[in-house]
Amino acid sequence: MVTTLLISTHGQGLYNITRELNEIVSTANIESGLCTVFVQHTSASLIIQENADPAVQDDLQNWLNRLVPENDPLYTHTDEGPDDMPAHIKSVLTATSLGIPVMQGRLVLGIWQGLYLWEHRQRGQQRNLAIHIQ
Amino acid sequence: MVTTLLISTHGQGLYNITRELNEIVSTANIESGLCTVFVQHTSASLIIQENADPAVQDDLQNWLNRLVPENDPLYTHTDEGPDDMPAHIKSVLTATSLGIPVMQGRLVLGIWQGLYLWEHRQRGQQRNLAIHIQ
Amino acid sequence: MVTTLLISTHGQGLYNITRELNEIVSTANIESGLCTVFVQHTSASLIIQENADPAVQDDLQNWLNRLVPENDPLYTHTDEGPDDMPAHIKSVLTATSLGIPVMQGRLVLGIWQGLYLWEHRQRGQQRNLAIHIQ
Repeated sequence: MVTTLLISTHGQGLYNITRELNEIVSTANIESGLCTVFVQHTSASLIIQENADPAVQDDLQNWLNRLVPENDPLYTHTDEGPDDMPAHIKSVLTATSLGIPVMQGRLVLGIWQGLYLWEHRQRGQQRNLAIHIQ
Repeated sequence: MVTTLLISTHGQGLYNITRELNEIVSTANIESGLCTVFVQHTSASLIIQENADPAVQDDLQNWLNRLVPENDPLYTHTDEGPDDMPAHIKSVLTATSLGIPVMQGRLVLGIWQGLYLWEHRQRGQQRNLAIHIQ
Repeated sequence: MVTTLLISTHGQGLYNITRELNEIVSTANIESGLCTVFVQHTSASLIIQENADPAVQDDLQNWLNRLVPENDPLYTHTDEGPDDMPAHIKSVLTATSLGIPVMQGRLVLGIWQGLYLWEHRQRGQQRNLAIHIQ
């Protein structure tokens, strides 16, 4: 079973999509299996990270922005704005695809784990995810 | 089939779990398929790397420690110790989930490839992995 | 079904393997499912990135070469040449394995997405990929 999920972002940052994914897994009505999440873009990506202290997400964003700054003179692909090439690099350093086992009808995330869509562009975007469940 | 694997770590470093994984694949008694390994934590991760020269593992650890040092003034999430926020960042830069095809009853790892759990915390931890085999 | 794909590289760079993968998916003759691509090496890796402007690929290569330079005095694993340890690190920062859902008989790549094998060694190599389709 392959389904799609549309997430509207409103600028750079982490968007917790754990609840949406667990709903899709619930609908699939399987006891155990594998859920693969795939983001159909090259300037947004996926991570699994701590869902407790929001400061973790802030620090992740600030650290990655420092590692991959805008307006780096190295970039030659600049036509789509100063945030575009950094967004491609950030996507490469994180995940485009994640496979998460399912047990007892739910994603086997650890207690502190959340699944996040990471929007790397400054403006909000419509982001399509393809989700395979078996 | 989803099973779990508990790995006790004794501080920061790479732990080769290839043998444990191949044993789980053997027990599943499949000829070909897919094995997905998922780490249920946000301060430990997975990589596939060279299993021959231990210097590769030392260099990987030292390089990543230099890229993501402790006590960076950028961090605001500091309550859980100086190694915690670096551990989250390191997990994001490596893999939380890995899918490895199975052929002839074994993981199709290349001859120089080993599968490692990467403990990013300074103290030993109990790490849970969920493993899906189909 | 697990099959293999051999890619001959001719030095460091990104090699678009989208067409080869879609041909393998076509041959499998499935309507929907999951395609997992796994690279059996520790000095080459996989990414999904923009397939339109070649400057994106140049910038990715140049940025990663600057982050992970050759001849870093930190490296102790130097026997296999100045490009070997950087190749291992670059592989760790990108993907060894990618799961891509299949819909209507094709990989569900976004319109701007291409699947690339990233050769991190300076000399050409024979690279083996294992591909699982279900």
